[in-house]
Amino acid sequence: MTQQLSNPVTQQPRAAHRLDGIEISLIRQINALATPLSVNLGIGEPNVEPDETLREFAVRAASTGSWHYTANAGTMQLRKLVAPGLDPKSEVCITAGTEEALFSIFQAYVDPGDEVLVPNPGFISYETIARIAGATPVPYNLDPSDWRLDVDALLKRITPKTKLIIVNSPSNPLGSVIDRETLQRIADAGPLVVSDEVYREIWYDEPPPSMLGMSDNVIVVGGMSKSHAMTGLRLGWVLASDAVMKPIVTAHQYVATCASAFSQSLAESILGDDAWNQSWLDRIRAQFRAQRETALFSIERELEVTIPPPAGAFYAFVPVPVCDTVVFAKTLATDAAVLVIPGIAFGSMGEGFVRISYAASLEAIGTGIERIGRWLRAGGR
Amino acid sequence: MTQQLSNPVTQQPRAAHRLDGIEISLIRQINALATPLSVNLGIGEPNVEPDETLREFAVRAASTGSWHYTANAGTMQLRKLVAPGLDPKSEVCITAGTEEALFSIFQAYVDPGDEVLVPNPGFISYETIARIAGATPVPYNLDPSDWRLDVDALLKRITPKTKLIIVNSPSNPLGSVIDRETLQRIADAGPLVVSDEVYREIWYDEPPPSMLGMSDNVIVVGGMSKSHAMTGLRLGWVLASDAVMKPIVTAHQYVATCASAFSQSLAESILGDDAWNQSWLDRIRAQFRAQRETALFSIERELEVTIPPPAGAFYAFVPVPVCDTVVFAKTLATDAAVLVIPGIAFGSMGEGFVRISYAASLEAIGTGIERIGRWLRAGGR
Repeated sequence: MTQQLSNPVTQQPRAAHRLDGIEISLIRQINALATPLSVNLGIGEPNVEPDETLREFAVRAASTGSWHYTANAGTMQLRKLVAPGLDPKSEVCITAGTEEALFSIFQAYVDPGDEVLVPNPGFISYETIARIAGATPVPYNLDPSDWRLDVDALLKRITPKTKLIIVNSPSNPLGSVIDRETLQRIADAGPLVVSDEVYREIWYDEPPPSMLGMSDNVIVVGGMSKSHAMTGLRLGWVLASDAVMKPIVTAHQYVATCASAFSQSLAESILGDDAWNQSWLDRIRAQFRAQRETALFSIERELEVTIPPPAGAFYAFVPVPVCDTVVFAKTLATDAAVLVIPGIAFGSMGEGFVRISYAASLEAIGTGIERIGRWLRAGGR
Repeated sequence: MTQQLSNPVTQQPRAAHRLDGIEISLIRQINALATPLSVNLGIGEPNVEPDETLREFAVRAASTGSWHYTANAGTMQLRKLVAPGLDPKSEVCITAGTEEALFSIFQAYVDPGDEVLVPNPGFISYETIARIAGATPVPYNLDPSDWRLDVDALLKRITPKTKLIIVNSPSNPLGSVIDRETLQRIADAGPLVVSDEVYREIWYDEPPPSMLGMSDNVIVVGGMSKSHAMTGLRLGWVLASDAVMKPIVTAHQYVATCASAFSQSLAESILGDDAWNQSWLDRIRAQFRAQRETALFSIERELEVTIPPPAGAFYAFVPVPVCDTVVFAKTLATDAAVLVIPGIAFGSMGEGFVRISYAASLEAIGTGIERIGRWLRAGGR
């Protein structure tokens, strides 16, 4: 900024302490190593493009939709469509994506000194936004043999300081799903529970149970980024009982004002056409099913490991025989042109694993995993 | 949520202390009193609809634009278009509106116990998001005779705890503009300065000076909500030197991930067609000029006061002879069907004034102000 900002800064302004140690995420760092020749198995979004109908819905929203502010909590029509059983006036808040939803929930409920139970391994944003809110993230460990959630072990980690319990099913990065009984026990544990269900529509054998309605303590987070291949359109939501919702809407007002009116209008068309929507979801589930089979087959053949088949989402969490998965992932990216995410990016229990996203073409999945295998057999670390 | 959420909450979960005393804003409360018969002079967005070209740009974005995540800081193309003189890689961050921009800046720089200097009267979000970040908002008073910013008085309020100085020109709710020399003195004062320039394209006699480039301490916030009648599309930006920007992008990543890819694509078309864009801005400035004249004329005739003509934005801040402008605004809304915002919504110095938005049709402006006059003459309080 030499041309325009001429006065030298004598003292570098100090960032707020809440950002101490918080950097751009490892996922972003690895993805920054991508080149045009890379096979990218590090991606956290569907390899799906909008079809003709989705584009038609979007064109309709663009050509006739309102560009004015919506209500902070979103348009009444979308709130009704998102959760037909709930009171749209007080129990639904549309957000600018699930990240903003989580951020606003944490701002609304977490005080400095509070504890937040987060899955380990788990999506690292939970820990980060807990720390930004001044809280201490307390990891609850999942069993590496099958990534089962040991609810008794989780309950033992609850203290008087526990403000939120974060649950994520289907899980990023594990692809695992938590059964209904386990979820109900967590719902009944006492503290507020945030159930991140953003991957809920991406399943293989049966729909994963939702925590919606399990208790007035439950805050469900959902969105359309993953299910409708619109990660860039920033459309999510929060579902909670009236009393629990109030401070969330207040925080959301000051964090984001409202979600994009265009995205809301598009979402109204999608959810308003149930027959089309179900066929879309069936189609992308079929696509991911094929990709999962290819990934599991390649992992078994090339990496010589068997992992529990993911029940949802589009990630395989795969053990690799290396000392340091960050070094491994970075070297793999630069030397073998394959991007995967080191497991440590998801917490201490993730060390020794890498997250392979199979949100990629069958060819990319096959080629990428083959390159990893060759790299490992050649002594790559 | 009786149907779905059956377990009674034995104890109401406590919201975080950072929200203590923070409610949905008075502006939203007053606007909630609108009926179909109301004349709404309480609105904070342009009474402008997208024209054919804007709709064409939007349809293009909807039919061919990417729906994938963009970089956290926005697409490179948009970053270049927003601030041609700056380094798009490190000095520009596209945000989900200016509210999110401000929120992320405060999260990035303000620690509990810090002080933030905010204009009084001024946009109340500054004070609120300072408090959400744990800081103490310290108002600097503007001179009610002409709303001039007394820079010496402002400088006297700087203490070792002062982390940010907020400047807003053109001002919401005043319509006043700060001259270049005053801005430069503030830029040189020492602390980081956040210059909220969201109303910068809406001016009457000459373009308001920007703080961009006045010092490496300056953080400029801008957006397209007001200038392009797209408040609902949530598109804003932050401009700052590399070193100052880094923590802002980190906070922004966890607050919002990225701005809507659709809105960014639309903004690229708008800013990429400079000739059209300038003619659009000329056109809406001409419209607001006519609305300003009508408002000033009606205020003088009906309310028998003369106010300094607003130099920017679309607000008249008008003294009214009542004891309590909140009661006045609420009664006026219900009994005379006119919406205006009580001055106290913008800080203690606003008491005794109301904000009349002339982002309304000439007829609505005339009728609304006439009704206020009649109401006051009839003894309305």
